[in-house]
Amino acid sequence: MQAQPRAPISPPPAAASAPTPAPPPAETLVFPPSDAAKLTSHLPPQHLQSQDQDQNAPTPQSRRPFVTLTFATSLDSSLSLAPGTRTVLSGPQSKAMTHHLRAHHAAILIGVGTAVADDPGLNCRIAGARSPRPVVVDPRARWALHRDSKVLQLARAGQGLAPFIVTAEREPSAGVAALLAEHGGKFLFVEAAAETGRFSWADVFDVLGREGLGSIMVEGGGEVINSLLAEPECELVDSVIVTIAPTWLGQGGVVVSPPRTVGESGRPSAPLRLTGVEWHPLGEDVVLCGKILR
Amino acid sequence: MQAQPRAPISPPPAAASAPTPAPPPAETLVFPPSDAAKLTSHLPPQHLQSQDQDQNAPTPQSRRPFVTLTFATSLDSSLSLAPGTRTVLSGPQSKAMTHHLRAHHAAILIGVGTAVADDPGLNCRIAGARSPRPVVVDPRARWALHRDSKVLQLARAGQGLAPFIVTAEREPSAGVAALLAEHGGKFLFVEAAAETGRFSWADVFDVLGREGLGSIMVEGGGEVINSLLAEPECELVDSVIVTIAPTWLGQGGVVVSPPRTVGESGRPSAPLRLTGVEWHPLGEDVVLCGKILR
Repeated sequence: MQAQPRAPISPPPAAASAPTPAPPPAETLVFPPSDAAKLTSHLPPQHLQSQDQDQNAPTPQSRRPFVTLTFATSLDSSLSLAPGTRTVLSGPQSKAMTHHLRAHHAAILIGVGTAVADDPGLNCRIAGARSPRPVVVDPRARWALHRDSKVLQLARAGQGLAPFIVTAEREPSAGVAALLAEHGGKFLFVEAAAETGRFSWADVFDVLGREGLGSIMVEGGGEVINSLLAEPECELVDSVIVTIAPTWLGQGGVVVSPPRTVGESGRPSAPLRLTGVEWHPLGEDVVLCGKILR
Repeated sequence: MQAQPRAPISPPPAAASAPTPAPPPAETLVFPPSDAAKLTSHLPPQHLQSQDQDQNAPTPQSRRPFVTLTFATSLDSSLSLAPGTRTVLSGPQSKAMTHHLRAHHAAILIGVGTAVADDPGLNCRIAGARSPRPVVVDPRARWALHRDSKVLQLARAGQGLAPFIVTAEREPSAGVAALLAEHGGKFLFVEAAAETGRFSWADVFDVLGREGLGSIMVEGGGEVINSLLAEPECELVDSVIVTIAPTWLGQGGVVVSPPRTVGESGRPSAPLRLTGVEWHPLGEDVVLCGKILR
Protein backbone atom coordinates (compact mmCIF):
# COMPACT_ATOMS: atom_id res chain seq x y z
CA MET A 1 0.00 0.00 0.00
CA GLN A 2 3.06 2.24 0.06
CA ALA A 3 4.19 4.39 -2.83
CA GLN A 4 7.62 3.41 -4.10
CA PRO A 5 9.55 6.58 -4.76
CA ARG A 6 12.89 6.49 -6.49
CA ALA A 7 16.03 7.22 -4.45
CA PRO A 8 16.40 10.98 -4.09
CA ILE A 9 19.34 12.82 -5.62
CA SER A 10 21.12 13.84 -2.46
CA PRO A 11 20.78 13.03 1.25
CA PRO A 12 18.08 10.48 1.93
CA PRO A 13 14.91 11.61 3.72
CA ALA A 14 15.87 12.39 7.29
CA ALA A 15 12.60 11.30 8.82
CA ALA A 16 14.07 10.63 12.23
CA SER A 17 15.55 14.11 12.56
CA ALA A 18 12.48 15.90 11.24
CA PRO A 19 11.15 18.35 13.80
CA THR A 20 7.58 17.95 12.56
CA PRO A 21 5.46 14.82 12.73
CA ALA A 22 5.06 12.72 9.58
CA PRO A 23 1.83 13.47 7.70
CA PRO A 24 -1.11 11.25 8.58
CA PRO A 25 -1.29 8.16 6.37
CA ALA A 26 -3.03 9.36 3.23
CA GLU A 27 -5.95 7.55 1.73
CA THR A 28 -4.85 5.30 -1.12
CA LEU A 29 -6.64 5.77 -4.42
CA VAL A 30 -7.72 3.16 -6.94
CA PHE A 31 -8.19 3.81 -10.66
CA PRO A 32 -9.86 0.82 -12.33
CA PRO A 33 -7.94 -0.77 -15.24
CA SER A 34 -11.04 -0.43 -17.45
CA ASP A 35 -10.90 3.35 -17.03
CA ALA A 36 -7.12 3.43 -17.32
CA ALA A 37 -7.27 1.62 -20.67
CA LYS A 38 -9.25 4.51 -22.18
CA LEU A 39 -6.44 6.94 -21.43
CA THR A 40 -3.47 4.89 -22.64
CA SER A 41 -3.27 6.45 -26.10
CA HIS A 42 -3.19 9.94 -24.58
CA LEU A 43 -0.21 9.30 -22.29
CA PRO A 44 3.46 9.91 -23.05
CA PRO A 45 5.37 7.07 -24.71
CA GLN A 46 6.33 4.50 -22.09
CA HIS A 47 10.07 5.33 -22.11
CA LEU A 48 9.33 8.98 -21.28
CA GLN A 49 6.96 8.27 -18.40
CA SER A 50 9.51 7.63 -15.68
CA GLN A 51 12.45 9.66 -14.57
CA ASP A 52 15.93 8.40 -15.28
CA GLN A 53 16.83 5.47 -13.12
CA ASP A 54 20.21 6.93 -12.24
CA GLN A 55 19.26 10.30 -10.92
CA ASN A 56 22.85 11.24 -10.22
CA ALA A 57 23.54 11.30 -13.93
CA PRO A 58 20.32 12.30 -15.64
CA THR A 59 20.26 11.66 -19.34
CA PRO A 60 19.32 14.87 -21.08
CA GLN A 61 16.31 14.29 -23.29
CA SER A 62 17.18 14.47 -26.97
CA ARG A 63 13.93 16.30 -27.54
CA ARG A 64 11.70 18.51 -25.48
CA PRO A 65 9.63 16.64 -22.90
CA PHE A 66 6.21 15.27 -23.81
CA VAL A 67 3.78 17.81 -22.35
CA THR A 68 0.30 16.90 -21.14
CA LEU A 69 -2.00 19.74 -20.18
CA THR A 70 -4.59 18.55 -17.69
CA PHE A 71 -7.06 20.30 -15.42
CA ALA A 72 -10.64 20.15 -14.15
CA THR A 73 -13.19 22.89 -14.79
CA SER A 74 -16.82 23.68 -14.22
CA LEU A 75 -19.21 24.03 -17.15
CA ASP A 76 -18.36 27.73 -17.14
CA SER A 77 -14.68 26.87 -17.48
CA SER A 78 -13.71 27.89 -13.96
CA LEU A 79 -10.95 26.17 -12.02
CA SER A 80 -12.06 27.69 -8.72
CA LEU A 81 -14.50 30.17 -7.22
CA ALA A 82 -11.82 32.85 -6.78
CA PRO A 83 -8.04 33.30 -7.01
CA GLY A 84 -6.33 31.55 -4.12
CA THR A 85 -9.43 29.47 -3.35
CA ARG A 86 -9.28 25.72 -3.71
CA THR A 87 -12.62 24.49 -5.07
CA VAL A 88 -13.48 20.80 -5.17
CA LEU A 89 -15.11 20.41 -8.56
CA SER A 90 -14.79 16.88 -9.78
CA GLY A 91 -15.75 13.62 -8.16
CA PRO A 92 -13.67 10.83 -6.57
CA GLN A 93 -13.23 8.95 -9.85
CA SER A 94 -11.73 12.03 -11.50
CA LYS A 95 -9.41 12.50 -8.54
CA ALA A 96 -8.16 8.93 -8.92
CA MET A 97 -7.63 9.62 -12.62
CA THR A 98 -5.43 12.60 -11.81
CA HIS A 99 -3.25 10.40 -9.64
CA HIS A 100 -3.13 7.77 -12.41
CA LEU A 101 -1.84 10.45 -14.76
CA ARG A 102 0.75 11.52 -12.19
CA ALA A 103 2.02 7.93 -12.08
CA HIS A 104 2.58 8.06 -15.84
CA HIS A 105 4.54 11.29 -16.07
CA ALA A 106 8.09 12.00 -14.98
CA ALA A 107 7.09 15.39 -13.57
CA ILE A 108 4.07 17.40 -12.51
CA LEU A 109 4.22 21.16 -13.05
CA ILE A 110 2.26 23.97 -11.40
CA GLY A 111 2.62 27.74 -11.15
CA VAL A 112 3.76 29.45 -7.97
CA GLY A 113 0.28 30.91 -7.38
CA THR A 114 -1.15 27.42 -6.98
CA ALA A 115 1.78 26.31 -4.81
CA VAL A 116 1.24 29.27 -2.46
CA ALA A 117 -2.56 28.96 -2.36
CA ASP A 118 -2.94 25.20 -2.06
CA ASP A 119 0.22 23.87 -0.32
CA PRO A 120 -0.23 20.83 -2.57
CA GLY A 121 1.29 17.38 -2.05
CA LEU A 122 1.97 16.74 -5.75
CA ASN A 123 2.54 13.05 -5.20
CA CYS A 124 0.81 9.94 -6.47
CA ARG A 125 -1.49 8.13 -4.07
CA ILE A 126 -2.22 5.05 -6.16
CA ALA A 127 -0.99 1.92 -4.37
CA GLY A 128 2.36 0.73 -5.70
CA ALA A 129 2.73 3.61 -8.14
CA ARG A 130 5.68 5.98 -8.21
CA SER A 131 5.33 9.72 -7.63
CA PRO A 132 6.34 12.29 -10.24
CA ARG A 133 8.91 15.04 -9.71
CA PRO A 134 7.06 18.20 -8.59
CA VAL A 135 8.06 21.28 -10.60
CA VAL A 136 7.00 24.76 -9.49
CA VAL A 137 7.37 27.64 -11.96
CA ASP A 138 8.35 30.60 -9.81
CA PRO A 139 10.17 33.34 -11.79
CA ARG A 140 10.75 35.60 -8.79
CA ALA A 141 11.32 32.80 -6.25
CA ARG A 142 8.46 33.96 -4.06
CA TRP A 143 7.34 30.53 -2.83
CA ALA A 144 8.19 30.47 0.87
CA LEU A 145 8.80 26.74 1.00
CA HIS A 146 9.32 25.59 4.58
CA ARG A 147 9.91 22.37 6.48
CA ASP A 148 6.18 21.86 7.05
CA SER A 149 5.19 22.39 3.42
CA LYS A 150 3.18 19.32 2.46
CA VAL A 151 5.46 18.42 -0.43
CA LEU A 152 8.46 18.20 1.92
CA GLN A 153 6.54 16.29 4.57
CA LEU A 154 5.66 13.72 1.92
CA ALA A 155 9.25 13.58 0.68
CA ARG A 156 10.50 12.90 4.21
CA ALA A 157 7.88 10.18 4.61
CA GLY A 158 8.98 8.52 1.37
CA GLN A 159 5.61 9.27 -0.21
CA GLY A 160 6.73 11.75 -2.82
CA LEU A 161 9.66 13.70 -4.24
CA ALA A 162 11.00 17.13 -3.32
CA PRO A 163 10.31 19.89 -5.86
CA PHE A 164 12.41 21.47 -8.55
CA ILE A 165 11.71 25.22 -8.52
CA VAL A 166 12.20 26.94 -11.87
CA THR A 167 13.23 30.54 -11.26
CA ALA A 168 14.84 33.55 -12.89
CA GLU A 169 16.05 34.80 -9.51
CA ARG A 170 19.83 34.51 -9.48
CA GLU A 171 20.06 34.63 -5.71
CA PRO A 172 17.09 32.77 -4.30
CA SER A 173 16.74 32.30 -0.56
CA ALA A 174 19.68 30.30 0.83
CA GLY A 175 17.35 28.79 3.41
CA VAL A 176 14.99 27.43 0.77
CA ALA A 177 17.95 26.22 -1.29
CA ALA A 178 19.29 24.30 1.72
CA LEU A 179 15.88 22.85 2.48
CA LEU A 180 15.51 21.72 -1.12
CA ALA A 181 18.98 20.17 -1.13
CA GLU A 182 18.28 18.33 2.11
CA HIS A 183 15.18 16.71 0.58
CA GLY A 184 16.54 16.05 -2.90
CA GLY A 185 15.05 19.05 -4.71
CA LYS A 186 16.75 22.11 -6.21
CA PHE A 187 16.41 25.44 -7.97
CA LEU A 188 16.66 25.43 -11.78
CA PHE A 189 17.63 28.69 -13.43
CA VAL A 190 15.85 29.98 -16.54
CA GLU A 191 16.24 33.47 -18.01
CA ALA A 192 13.01 35.54 -17.98
CA ALA A 193 12.03 38.17 -20.55
CA ALA A 194 13.38 41.54 -19.43
CA GLU A 195 10.15 43.46 -20.11
CA THR A 196 7.57 41.05 -18.72
CA GLY A 197 9.55 39.04 -16.18
CA ARG A 198 7.96 35.96 -17.71
CA PHE A 199 9.47 32.75 -19.00
CA SER A 200 9.26 31.33 -22.45
CA TRP A 201 7.67 27.90 -22.06
CA ALA A 202 10.13 26.46 -24.54
CA ASP A 203 12.98 27.49 -22.21
CA VAL A 204 11.26 25.96 -19.20
CA PHE A 205 10.61 22.64 -20.93
CA ASP A 206 14.15 22.60 -22.34
CA VAL A 207 15.71 22.90 -18.90
CA LEU A 208 13.41 20.18 -17.55
CA GLY A 209 14.39 17.93 -20.45
CA ARG A 210 18.06 18.51 -19.62
CA GLU A 211 17.24 17.25 -16.11
CA GLY A 212 16.17 13.94 -17.64
CA LEU A 213 12.43 14.60 -17.27
CA GLY A 214 10.90 13.14 -20.42
CA SER A 215 7.27 13.94 -19.71
CA ILE A 216 5.61 16.83 -17.89
CA MET A 217 2.04 16.93 -16.67
CA VAL A 218 0.92 20.55 -16.37
CA GLU A 219 -1.85 20.82 -13.77
CA GLY A 220 -2.43 24.54 -13.18
CA GLY A 221 -3.31 27.13 -12.22
CA GLY A 222 -5.23 29.43 -14.50
CA GLU A 223 -2.36 31.64 -15.59
CA VAL A 224 -0.16 28.65 -16.48
CA ILE A 225 -2.96 26.90 -18.39
CA ASN A 226 -4.06 29.99 -20.32
CA SER A 227 -0.50 30.82 -21.31
CA LEU A 228 -0.05 27.29 -22.68
CA LEU A 229 -3.30 27.51 -24.66
CA ALA A 230 -2.08 30.71 -26.32
CA GLU A 231 -0.40 30.82 -29.72
CA PRO A 232 2.37 29.83 -30.33
CA GLU A 233 3.02 28.20 -26.93
CA CYS A 234 0.20 25.69 -27.51
CA GLU A 235 2.46 24.01 -30.07
CA LEU A 236 4.51 22.70 -27.14
CA VAL A 237 1.51 20.75 -25.81
CA ASP A 238 1.32 17.10 -26.91
CA SER A 239 -1.82 15.93 -25.15
CA VAL A 240 -4.81 17.59 -23.49
CA ILE A 241 -6.92 15.91 -20.83
CA VAL A 242 -9.73 18.05 -19.38
CA THR A 243 -12.22 16.95 -16.76
CA ILE A 244 -15.53 18.82 -16.75
CA ALA A 245 -17.86 18.73 -13.76
CA PRO A 246 -21.61 19.31 -14.21
CA THR A 247 -21.69 22.55 -12.25
CA TRP A 248 -21.55 26.28 -12.92
CA LEU A 249 -19.34 28.24 -10.52
CA GLY A 250 -20.71 31.56 -11.75
CA GLN A 251 -19.12 34.82 -12.81
CA GLY A 252 -15.92 35.84 -11.05
CA GLY A 253 -14.14 32.49 -10.97
CA VAL A 254 -10.64 31.67 -12.19
CA VAL A 255 -11.43 30.95 -15.82
CA VAL A 256 -9.62 28.87 -18.41
CA SER A 257 -9.92 30.76 -21.69
CA PRO A 258 -6.95 31.54 -23.89
CA PRO A 259 -6.12 35.14 -24.78
CA ARG A 260 -7.68 36.12 -28.11
CA THR A 261 -5.02 36.97 -30.66
CA VAL A 262 -5.75 39.27 -33.57
CA GLY A 263 -4.52 38.26 -37.01
CA GLU A 264 -3.14 40.44 -39.77
CA SER A 265 -6.66 41.08 -41.06
CA GLY A 266 -7.57 42.64 -37.72
CA ARG A 267 -10.03 39.80 -37.07
CA PRO A 268 -9.60 37.43 -34.15
CA SER A 269 -7.54 34.37 -34.95
CA ALA A 270 -9.30 31.04 -35.40
CA PRO A 271 -10.40 29.38 -32.17
CA LEU A 272 -8.19 26.69 -30.72
CA ARG A 273 -9.61 23.27 -31.54
CA LEU A 274 -8.86 19.74 -30.38
CA THR A 275 -8.55 16.82 -32.74
CA GLY A 276 -8.64 13.06 -32.18
CA VAL A 277 -11.22 13.82 -29.54
CA GLU A 278 -12.58 11.27 -27.07
CA TRP A 279 -15.13 11.92 -24.32
CA HIS A 280 -15.22 9.48 -21.43
CA PRO A 281 -17.94 9.85 -18.77
CA LEU A 282 -16.37 9.22 -15.36
CA GLY A 283 -18.74 9.29 -12.41
CA GLU A 284 -20.73 12.52 -12.72
CA ASP A 285 -17.93 14.17 -14.73
CA VAL A 286 -16.71 13.78 -18.28
CA VAL A 287 -13.08 13.47 -19.36
CA LEU A 288 -12.10 14.99 -22.68
CA CYS A 289 -8.90 13.75 -24.37
CA GLY A 290 -7.41 15.16 -27.53
CA LYS A 291 -4.58 16.96 -29.24
CA ILE A 292 -4.41 20.59 -30.25
CA LEU A 293 -5.20 20.95 -33.94
CA ARG A 294 -2.27 22.62 -35.73
CA MET B 1 -39.96 15.11 -46.78
CA GLN B 2 -42.11 18.11 -45.86
CA ALA B 3 -42.63 19.40 -42.36
CA GLN B 4 -46.26 19.22 -41.30
CA PRO B 5 -47.14 22.41 -39.51
CA ARG B 6 -50.43 22.76 -37.73
CA ALA B 7 -53.07 25.12 -39.18
CA PRO B 8 -52.18 28.69 -38.20
CA ILE B 9 -54.44 30.71 -35.92
CA SER B 10 -55.61 33.30 -38.39
CA PRO B 11 -55.36 33.79 -42.17
CA PRO B 12 -53.60 30.89 -43.86
CA PRO B 13 -50.16 31.45 -45.39
CA ALA B 14 -50.62 33.62 -48.47
CA ALA B 15 -47.83 32.06 -50.48
CA ALA B 16 -49.25 33.11 -53.83
CA SER B 17 -49.43 36.79 -52.92
CA ALA B 18 -46.02 36.94 -51.25
CA PRO B 19 -43.83 39.49 -53.01
CA THR B 20 -40.65 37.59 -52.14
CA PRO B 21 -39.64 34.20 -53.47
CA ALA B 22 -40.06 31.14 -51.26
CA PRO B 23 -36.84 30.17 -49.48
CA PRO B 24 -34.74 27.56 -51.23
CA PRO B 25 -35.66 24.02 -50.18
CA ALA B 26 -33.76 23.50 -46.96
CA GLU B 27 -31.62 20.47 -46.35
CA THR B 28 -33.52 17.86 -44.37
CA LEU B 29 -31.85 16.60 -41.21
CA VAL B 30 -31.78 13.09 -39.80
CA PHE B 31 -31.33 12.25 -36.13
CA PRO B 32 -30.76 8.51 -35.67
CA PRO B 33 -33.25 6.69 -33.39
CA SER B 34 -30.33 5.28 -31.38
CA ASP B 35 -29.25 8.80 -30.46
CA ALA B 36 -32.84 9.95 -29.95
CA ALA B 37 -33.45 7.14 -27.44
CA LYS B 38 -30.76 8.58 -25.14
CA LEU B 39 -32.64 11.86 -24.85
CA THR B 40 -36.15 10.55 -24.25
CA SER B 41 -36.06 10.79 -20.46
CA HIS B 42 -34.95 14.44 -20.67
CA LEU B 43 -37.85 15.57 -22.88
CA PRO B 44 -41.19 17.01 -21.74
CA PRO B 45 -43.99 14.51 -21.07
CA GLN B 46 -45.55 13.43 -24.36
CA HIS B 47 -48.84 15.31 -23.84
CA LEU B 48 -46.95 18.60 -23.40
CA GLN B 49 -44.76 18.24 -26.48
CA SER B 50 -47.23 19.41 -29.09
CA GLN B 51 -49.33 22.49 -29.26
CA ASP B 52 -53.06 22.24 -28.79
CA GLN B 53 -54.74 20.69 -31.77
CA ASP B 54 -57.46 23.31 -31.88
CA GLN B 55 -55.45 26.49 -32.01
CA ASN B 56 -58.56 28.63 -32.14
CA ALA B 57 -59.37 27.64 -28.60
CA PRO B 58 -56.09 26.93 -26.88
CA THR B 59 -56.43 25.06 -23.64
CA PRO B 60 -54.62 27.00 -20.97
CA GLN B 61 -52.05 24.78 -19.28
CA SER B 62 -53.01 23.96 -15.72
CA ARG B 63 -49.39 24.37 -14.76
CA ARG B 64 -46.47 26.36 -16.06
CA PRO B 65 -44.95 24.93 -19.23
CA PHE B 66 -42.18 22.35 -19.03
CA VAL B 67 -39.00 24.35 -19.68
CA THR B 68 -35.92 22.86 -21.32
CA LEU B 69 -32.79 25.00 -21.36
CA THR B 70 -30.57 24.01 -24.26
CA PHE B 71 -27.54 25.57 -25.92
CA ALA B 72 -24.11 24.77 -27.35
CA THR B 73 -20.88 26.20 -25.96
CA SER B 74 -17.16 25.97 -26.43
CA LEU B 75 -14.95 24.52 -23.69
CA ASP B 76 -14.60 28.06 -22.37
CA SER B 77 -18.39 28.32 -22.14
CA SER B 78 -18.78 30.74 -25.04
CA LEU B 79 -21.83 30.75 -27.29
CA SER B 80 -20.12 32.89 -29.92
CA LEU B 81 -16.95 34.85 -30.61
CA ALA B 82 -18.64 38.20 -29.95
CA PRO B 83 -22.10 39.68 -29.38
CA GLY B 84 -24.10 39.65 -32.61
CA THR B 85 -21.77 37.11 -34.20
CA ARG B 86 -23.09 33.70 -35.13
CA THR B 87 -20.38 31.12 -34.48
CA VAL B 88 -20.70 27.56 -35.69
CA LEU B 89 -19.47 25.54 -32.76
CA SER B 90 -20.97 22.09 -32.81
CA GLY B 91 -20.97 19.47 -35.51
CA PRO B 92 -23.72 18.17 -37.85
CA GLN B 93 -24.90 15.51 -35.40
CA SER B 94 -25.47 18.15 -32.71
CA LYS B 95 -27.36 20.30 -35.20
CA ALA B 96 -29.67 17.39 -35.99
CA MET B 97 -30.17 16.89 -32.25
CA THR B 98 -31.28 20.50 -31.86
CA HIS B 99 -33.91 19.96 -34.53
CA HIS B 100 -35.01 16.72 -32.83
CA LEU B 101 -35.51 18.70 -29.62
CA ARG B 102 -37.50 21.31 -31.52
CA ALA B 103 -39.82 18.57 -32.79
CA HIS B 104 -40.52 17.57 -29.19
CA HIS B 105 -41.39 20.98 -27.76
CA ALA B 106 -44.47 23.08 -28.34
CA ALA B 107 -42.40 26.26 -28.55
CA ILE B 108 -38.84 27.45 -29.02
CA LEU B 109 -37.86 30.65 -27.21
CA ILE B 110 -35.01 33.10 -27.90
CA GLY B 111 -34.18 36.64 -26.82
CA VAL B 112 -34.53 39.61 -29.16
CA GLY B 113 -30.74 40.00 -29.41
CA THR B 114 -30.45 36.60 -31.06
CA ALA B 115 -33.45 37.28 -33.31
CA VAL B 116 -31.87 40.53 -34.52
CA ALA B 117 -28.36 39.12 -34.94
CA ASP B 118 -29.17 35.76 -36.53
CA ASP B 119 -32.46 36.18 -38.44
CA PRO B 120 -33.14 32.57 -37.40
CA GLY B 121 -35.61 30.16 -39.00
CA LEU B 122 -36.66 28.54 -35.70
CA ASN B 123 -38.33 25.64 -37.45
CA CYS B 124 -37.72 21.90 -37.44
CA ARG B 125 -36.00 20.40 -40.44
CA ILE B 126 -36.37 16.74 -39.57
CA ALA B 127 -38.41 14.93 -42.24
CA GLY B 128 -42.03 14.46 -41.22
CA ALA B 129 -41.63 16.32 -37.93
CA ARG B 130 -43.70 19.32 -36.90
CA SER B 131 -42.16 22.72 -36.16
CA PRO B 132 -42.46 24.42 -32.77
CA ARG B 133 -43.99 27.83 -32.19
CA PRO B 134 -41.19 30.44 -32.25
CA VAL B 135 -41.30 32.79 -29.25
CA VAL B 136 -39.16 35.93 -29.15
CA VAL B 137 -38.75 37.74 -25.84
CA ASP B 138 -38.64 41.40 -26.78
CA PRO B 139 -39.62 43.72 -23.87
CA ARG B 140 -39.30 46.93 -25.89
CA ALA B 141 -40.56 45.51 -29.21
CA ARG B 142 -37.36 46.39 -31.01
CA TRP B 143 -37.31 43.42 -33.41
CA ALA B 144 -37.91 44.92 -36.86
CA LEU B 145 -39.65 41.83 -38.22
CA HIS B 146 -40.29 42.23 -41.94
CA ARG B 147 -41.74 40.20 -44.78
CA ASP B 148 -38.33 38.78 -45.73
CA SER B 149 -37.43 37.68 -42.20
CA LYS B 150 -36.55 34.01 -42.45
CA VAL B 151 -39.15 32.93 -39.92
CA LEU B 152 -41.94 34.49 -42.03
CA GLN B 153 -40.57 33.09 -45.29
CA LEU B 154 -40.68 29.64 -43.73
CA ALA B 155 -44.19 30.21 -42.39
CA ARG B 156 -45.40 31.19 -45.88
CA ALA B 157 -43.74 28.10 -47.35
CA GLY B 158 -45.49 25.87 -44.82
CA GLN B 159 -42.14 24.95 -43.27
CA GLY B 160 -42.57 26.61 -39.90
CA LEU B 161 -44.82 28.76 -37.74
CA ALA B 162 -44.96 32.53 -37.34
CA PRO B 163 -43.60 33.87 -34.06
CA PHE B 164 -45.25 35.02 -30.87
CA ILE B 165 -43.43 38.13 -29.65
CA VAL B 166 -43.55 38.67 -25.89
CA THR B 167 -43.37 42.38 -25.17
CA ALA B 168 -44.05 44.99 -22.50
CA GLU B 169 -44.60 47.62 -25.19
CA ARG B 170 -48.29 48.56 -25.11
CA GLU B 171 -48.27 50.02 -28.58
CA PRO B 172 -45.91 47.94 -30.71
CA SER B 173 -45.52 48.69 -34.41
CA ALA B 174 -48.85 48.33 -36.21
CA GLY B 175 -46.97 47.15 -39.31
CA VAL B 176 -45.31 44.30 -37.42
CA ALA B 177 -48.62 43.45 -35.74
CA ALA B 178 -50.32 43.19 -39.14
CA LEU B 179 -47.49 41.10 -40.55
CA LEU B 180 -47.69 38.75 -37.56
CA ALA B 181 -51.47 38.45 -37.90
CA GLU B 182 -51.18 37.72 -41.60
CA HIS B 183 -48.84 34.80 -40.90
CA GLY B 184 -50.54 33.44 -37.80
CA GLY B 185 -48.31 35.02 -35.16
CA LYS B 186 -49.02 37.73 -32.60
CA PHE B 187 -47.77 39.97 -29.83
CA LEU B 188 -48.24 38.73 -26.26
CA PHE B 189 -48.24 41.37 -23.54
CA VAL B 190 -46.33 40.89 -20.27
CA GLU B 191 -45.68 43.60 -17.66
CA ALA B 192 -41.98 44.42 -17.16
CA ALA B 193 -40.39 45.56 -13.91
CA ALA B 194 -40.55 49.35 -13.72
CA GLU B 195 -36.92 49.82 -12.61
CA THR B 196 -35.15 47.35 -14.89
CA GLY B 197 -37.51 47.07 -17.85
CA ARG B 198 -37.05 43.30 -17.55
CA PHE B 199 -39.56 40.50 -17.36
CA SER B 200 -40.01 37.99 -14.62
CA TRP B 201 -39.54 34.58 -16.25
CA ALA B 202 -42.48 33.23 -14.28
CA ASP B 203 -44.72 35.83 -15.97
CA VAL B 204 -43.38 34.98 -19.42
CA PHE B 205 -43.91 31.24 -18.97
CA ASP B 206 -47.35 31.83 -17.47
CA VAL B 207 -48.53 33.77 -20.50
CA LEU B 208 -47.13 31.09 -22.83
CA GLY B 209 -48.93 28.41 -20.82
CA ARG B 210 -52.18 30.36 -21.21
CA GLU B 211 -51.59 30.18 -24.98
CA GLY B 212 -51.68 26.39 -24.75
CA LEU B 213 -47.93 25.94 -25.06
CA GLY B 214 -47.10 23.09 -22.68
CA SER B 215 -43.36 22.93 -23.29
CA ILE B 216 -40.78 25.58 -24.08
CA MET B 217 -37.30 24.97 -25.39
CA VAL B 218 -35.09 27.94 -24.49
CA GLU B 219 -32.24 28.21 -27.00
CA GLY B 220 -30.50 31.52 -26.32
CA GLY B 221 -28.81 33.90 -26.36
CA GLY B 222 -26.39 34.55 -23.53
CA GLU B 223 -28.50 37.02 -21.59
CA VAL B 224 -31.56 34.76 -21.66
CA ILE B 225 -29.56 31.68 -20.62
CA ASN B 226 -27.66 33.41 -17.81
CA SER B 227 -30.83 34.91 -16.41
CA LEU B 228 -32.44 31.45 -16.31
CA LEU B 229 -29.40 29.96 -14.57
CA ALA B 230 -29.67 32.59 -11.83
CA GLU B 231 -31.42 32.05 -8.51
CA PRO B 232 -34.39 31.82 -8.13
CA GLU B 233 -35.31 31.75 -11.84
CA CYS B 234 -33.46 28.45 -12.31
CA GLU B 235 -36.26 26.78 -10.37
CA LEU B 236 -38.45 27.26 -13.47
CA VAL B 237 -36.13 25.05 -15.54
CA ASP B 238 -37.15 21.38 -15.77
CA SER B 239 -34.43 19.99 -18.01
CA VAL B 240 -30.97 21.10 -19.15
CA ILE B 241 -29.34 19.86 -22.35
CA VAL B 242 -25.93 21.39 -23.12
CA THR B 243 -23.75 20.55 -26.10
CA ILE B 244 -20.02 21.18 -25.64
CA ALA B 245 -17.68 21.41 -28.61
CA PRO B 246 -13.96 20.61 -28.20
CA THR B 247 -12.77 24.12 -28.93
CA TRP B 248 -11.78 27.25 -27.01
CA LEU B 249 -13.15 30.50 -28.46
CA GLY B 250 -10.89 32.60 -26.24
CA GLN B 251 -11.44 35.61 -24.03
CA GLY B 252 -14.07 38.11 -25.16
CA GLY B 253 -16.79 35.71 -26.28
CA VAL B 254 -20.43 35.66 -25.23
CA VAL B 255 -20.10 33.52 -22.12
CA VAL B 256 -22.63 31.35 -20.30
CA SER B 257 -21.94 31.79 -16.60
CA PRO B 258 -24.65 32.65 -14.10
CA PRO B 259 -24.36 35.78 -11.97
CA ARG B 260 -22.77 35.03 -8.60
CA THR B 261 -25.16 35.72 -5.75
CA VAL B 262 -23.91 36.52 -2.28
CA GLY B 263 -25.59 34.82 0.66
CA GLU B 264 -26.40 36.25 4.07
CA SER B 265 -22.95 35.29 5.32
CA GLY B 266 -21.40 37.53 2.67
CA ARG B 267 -19.92 34.48 0.96
CA PRO B 268 -20.86 33.51 -2.58
CA SER B 269 -23.82 31.15 -2.76
CA ALA B 270 -23.22 27.52 -3.61
CA PRO B 271 -22.50 26.81 -7.27
CA LEU B 272 -25.35 25.62 -9.45
CA ARG B 273 -25.11 21.88 -9.93
CA LEU B 274 -26.85 19.38 -12.18
CA THR B 275 -28.19 16.07 -10.97
CA GLY B 276 -29.25 12.90 -12.78
CA VAL B 277 -26.41 13.68 -15.14
CA GLU B 278 -25.77 11.85 -18.41
CA TRP B 279 -22.97 12.58 -20.89
CA HIS B 280 -23.50 11.39 -24.45
CA PRO B 281 -20.66 11.79 -26.98
CA LEU B 282 -22.14 12.91 -30.29
CA GLY B 283 -19.71 13.25 -33.17
CA GLU B 284 -16.84 15.38 -31.88
CA ASP B 285 -19.09 17.01 -29.28
CA VAL B 286 -20.57 15.84 -26.02
CA VAL B 287 -24.18 16.31 -24.91
CA LEU B 288 -24.81 16.81 -21.20
CA CYS B 289 -28.32 16.14 -19.89
CA GLY B 290 -29.49 16.75 -16.35
CA LYS B 291 -31.73 18.63 -13.97
CA ILE B 292 -30.82 21.54 -11.77
CA LEU B 293 -30.17 20.34 -8.22
CA ARG B 294 -32.55 22.12 -5.82
